[in-house]
Amino acid sequence: MDTPRLYLQLAGRYRQAIESGTLLPSQRLPSVRNLMRTHDVSLSTALQACRVLEEQGWVEARPRSGYFVRRPARSTIAPVPEPESLVAINPDDFVGMHHRISSYVAKCAAHPVSINLGGAVATPDAYPMEALQRAMARVLKHQPGLLVRAVPIHGDPGFRQVLAQRALEVGLQVSPEEIVVTYGCTEALNLALRAVAQPGDTIAVESPTYFGILQAIESLGMRALEIPASPQHGMSVEALSLALHTHTDIKAVVLVPNYHNPLGSVMPDEDKARIAALCARHAVPVIEDDSYGRLHDEPNLPRALKSWDQTGNVIYCGSAHKTFAPGMRLGWLMPGRWRARVEMLKYANTRPNDSVVQIAAAEVMGSRLYDRHLQKLRASLLQWRNQVIDTIAECFPTGTRLSPPRGGLVLWVELPPGTSSDRVFELALQEGIRVAPGTLFSNSGRFSNFLRISAGQAVTPTVERAIRRLGDIVADQAAGTSSPKKPSPRNP
Amino acid sequence: MDTPRLYLQLAGRYRQAIESGTLLPSQRLPSVRNLMRTHDVSLSTALQACRVLEEQGWVEARPRSGYFVRRPARSTIAPVPEPESLVAINPDDFVGMHHRISSYVAKCAAHPVSINLGGAVATPDAYPMEALQRAMARVLKHQPGLLVRAVPIHGDPGFRQVLAQRALEVGLQVSPEEIVVTYGCTEALNLALRAVAQPGDTIAVESPTYFGILQAIESLGMRALEIPASPQHGMSVEALSLALHTHTDIKAVVLVPNYHNPLGSVMPDEDKARIAALCARHAVPVIEDDSYGRLHDEPNLPRALKSWDQTGNVIYCGSAHKTFAPGMRLGWLMPGRWRARVEMLKYANTRPNDSVVQIAAAEVMGSRLYDRHLQKLRASLLQWRNQVIDTIAECFPTGTRLSPPRGGLVLWVELPPGTSSDRVFELALQEGIRVAPGTLFSNSGRFSNFLRISAGQAVTPTVERAIRRLGDIVADQAAGTSSPKKPSPRNP
Repeated sequence: MDTPRLYLQLAGRYRQAIESGTLLPSQRLPSVRNLMRTHDVSLSTALQACRVLEEQGWVEARPRSGYFVRRPARSTIAPVPEPESLVAINPDDFVGMHHRISSYVAKCAAHPVSINLGGAVATPDAYPMEALQRAMARVLKHQPGLLVRAVPIHGDPGFRQVLAQRALEVGLQVSPEEIVVTYGCTEALNLALRAVAQPGDTIAVESPTYFGILQAIESLGMRALEIPASPQHGMSVEALSLALHTHTDIKAVVLVPNYHNPLGSVMPDEDKARIAALCARHAVPVIEDDSYGRLHDEPNLPRALKSWDQTGNVIYCGSAHKTFAPGMRLGWLMPGRWRARVEMLKYANTRPNDSVVQIAAAEVMGSRLYDRHLQKLRASLLQWRNQVIDTIAECFPTGTRLSPPRGGLVLWVELPPGTSSDRVFELALQEGIRVAPGTLFSNSGRFSNFLRISAGQAVTPTVERAIRRLGDIVADQAAGTSSPKKPSPRNP
Repeated sequence: MDTPRLYLQLAGRYRQAIESGTLLPSQRLPSVRNLMRTHDVSLSTALQACRVLEEQGWVEARPRSGYFVRRPARSTIAPVPEPESLVAINPDDFVGMHHRISSYVAKCAAHPVSINLGGAVATPDAYPMEALQRAMARVLKHQPGLLVRAVPIHGDPGFRQVLAQRALEVGLQVSPEEIVVTYGCTEALNLALRAVAQPGDTIAVESPTYFGILQAIESLGMRALEIPASPQHGMSVEALSLALHTHTDIKAVVLVPNYHNPLGSVMPDEDKARIAALCARHAVPVIEDDSYGRLHDEPNLPRALKSWDQTGNVIYCGSAHKTFAPGMRLGWLMPGRWRARVEMLKYANTRPNDSVVQIAAAEVMGSRLYDRHLQKLRASLLQWRNQVIDTIAECFPTGTRLSPPRGGLVLWVELPPGTSSDRVFELALQEGIRVAPGTLFSNSGRFSNFLRISAGQAVTPTVERAIRRLGDIVADQAAGTSSPKKPSPRNP
């Protein structure tokens, strides 16, 4: 239901010209009249394109002279390099994710947080609270009996109907009966893993990847085999192919193809197709987490990897958490040929989800309001992300690297070599600033100088101060001089 | 917060006198004036006690003559015998519960049901719908931001506060921080099992027991060791002791001490104390499911087994499903010394529960309304249960046996030897009547001539017709003459 907007296409074209160096800083952008003629567009489209470029910081307007190319601070920051080797990391290193996450969770819970840059979710204001509230109130008014009636065996059919309709937009044709609703994407991932693998089995994942995936794997007694992933394109197909030949005990591949958490990478369509085919050939199921796909900057929604699946070998997982209802704990899976086993595991794990939330979510997700909300959210995210990147570029020390993603909620920031992100996390937390240290995203220790920083809120003066303070802490740690401003006896 | 009512105590005393044969059918009950004098109670108390006995069918009023003892139909039905042997059933028999449950679920989903006698939950009318609706509406009005805010790491503190207060009533003193909120008791049981045992481990359970427990065990790759259980007193302490000496690989004992599903049994306090001590001595954790404890006929709430736990060896699980909010999927555990591991597993499995439902549940559960609701529910359940038992006693064939429980939601009915409850289930389902066949409650096949029948609704003329029809089907099957009234081509 997404309409690619002409002005966004036009703005994108000029952004690329600036990024690639075709247009240089201080050069004048073609006049609005020229844009109209060259691209055969209306005045309004040409003007809107210029305004988008201005909002994103790529051009600045000079009165009576037109738009001039700027080089935003973010364009000075070097990208995160591609992984050095394509060899998977030995899963024998796989230990302790539970402990690290529990320790992270405990520390976060123990410290009041004033600025949360640690989450992979946008600020509450960015979500359609009133629409959700109205929808919930309507369900409660018209169907209060749902609160006191045991949930029917297969849950609410209306929500699965809407999910099946929305799945068409990412290239998936499934019937509502082929969808299982879960408590968040977390339960979906757990059920998918349990459906296809046993304790002791090896699961291939991106390196780095979302800590929830590593924790689910560890909590189920499985082993994560970390496959090198590119900050641009996600999991390396070559590295996965190599691993499938070397490690014959791989029982599943877990992937986040679109706006990866924490990398921000998007897997190119040809790689999605190759991985679908490669895994089908090896009879290794793919578990796809597409929680972030709808948070794209470009006009087009990226396709699901599952849309290249011809044998039911891909289990597709999604969630309402990132896109429209962070407080409602709704997820889902399309389990392909593991449907019967996933249905059984869902019943054994938590029984069908309660109905009220599903019916309210279906009402919102099935309406045009959902499309309008996403359009607005995506525009905000693009703007906020650029603001955060600009601030980081301005105030983090030399040697900091970052590959600006084209969508999603987070930034994967490489600190100068040797900087301990665990230490940065602890020092920042003492000042009420929460970030996620790189050690949460891999069992390998390869990312101990990375931070995941949320880009899900506007850079207000308060947020800017927090990022600047974070930059100071990083600079201190990078220089090897440990001088936190407020040393705490609890955390020396 | 429960006040034992004097008139209920008085009625209970005379009920026992009738049951034990001290007072015989057609004998006259002492006059109201005599009751007042003998027991030193008010006119109102004496009258209320007589009315309770009349409602429960133990006496009948004859105009101007007083109350006369009746023998309700249920007093003619023989109790289910004690298990014949105290030897646990070999867990190598443990296979296929998944398949049986999936097949049951699929058949139930495929057939429209007009009379549901298959559930272990009361009719929706028996629950405080309006109070829950109002509480939900209030949360949505005053805290709509909860819908769009990621749930904080340890969930809602208010609900755990109320749970800790209510736990005092069953003899448990825990702090709110020691409680983990889950999606129903099902998730609580899963987390408890995963906290203390690994795939391949053996778990001791009652035989028979709730199929959800058997399914959770099987789905986690564990093995259920079925310990003989008495229809009166639940799991045999002797049999468990024997099993703990014989099977050294038992890693946990799962118990439903109060108003067991399906048995209806209540474990005597001395057995609870002995099991707590026995398991502590063997260092085998106990997982207690106390979902039904508040559905007691007697004035006093039965104590939790965990109240005899001195070392944190008992994990206590509870739920809102049976007592006040079947549609809200709220459960909880008090994990004792496995708290850190349970918290981690909850985070890895489904993340913290969403807040709206918890806050609304806390409001209802923390108020006097909850006590009043439970008092009313308990009185209804007692009445309904007696009505269902009377109807079964009247219209099921000779050889049917049933031990009337003193609380809870279900009846465990033994059909004449050789009667297939699977066949009865299928034939009844074709006529729109759902029951739960005994094969769901054990891996042993020992209960293939048992039915679990819900006692959670009044015996209206429609329900009475359904039970009578069920009695006909049972009689047909018991006699070996298979003549369903409406043969279906789909299920010959």
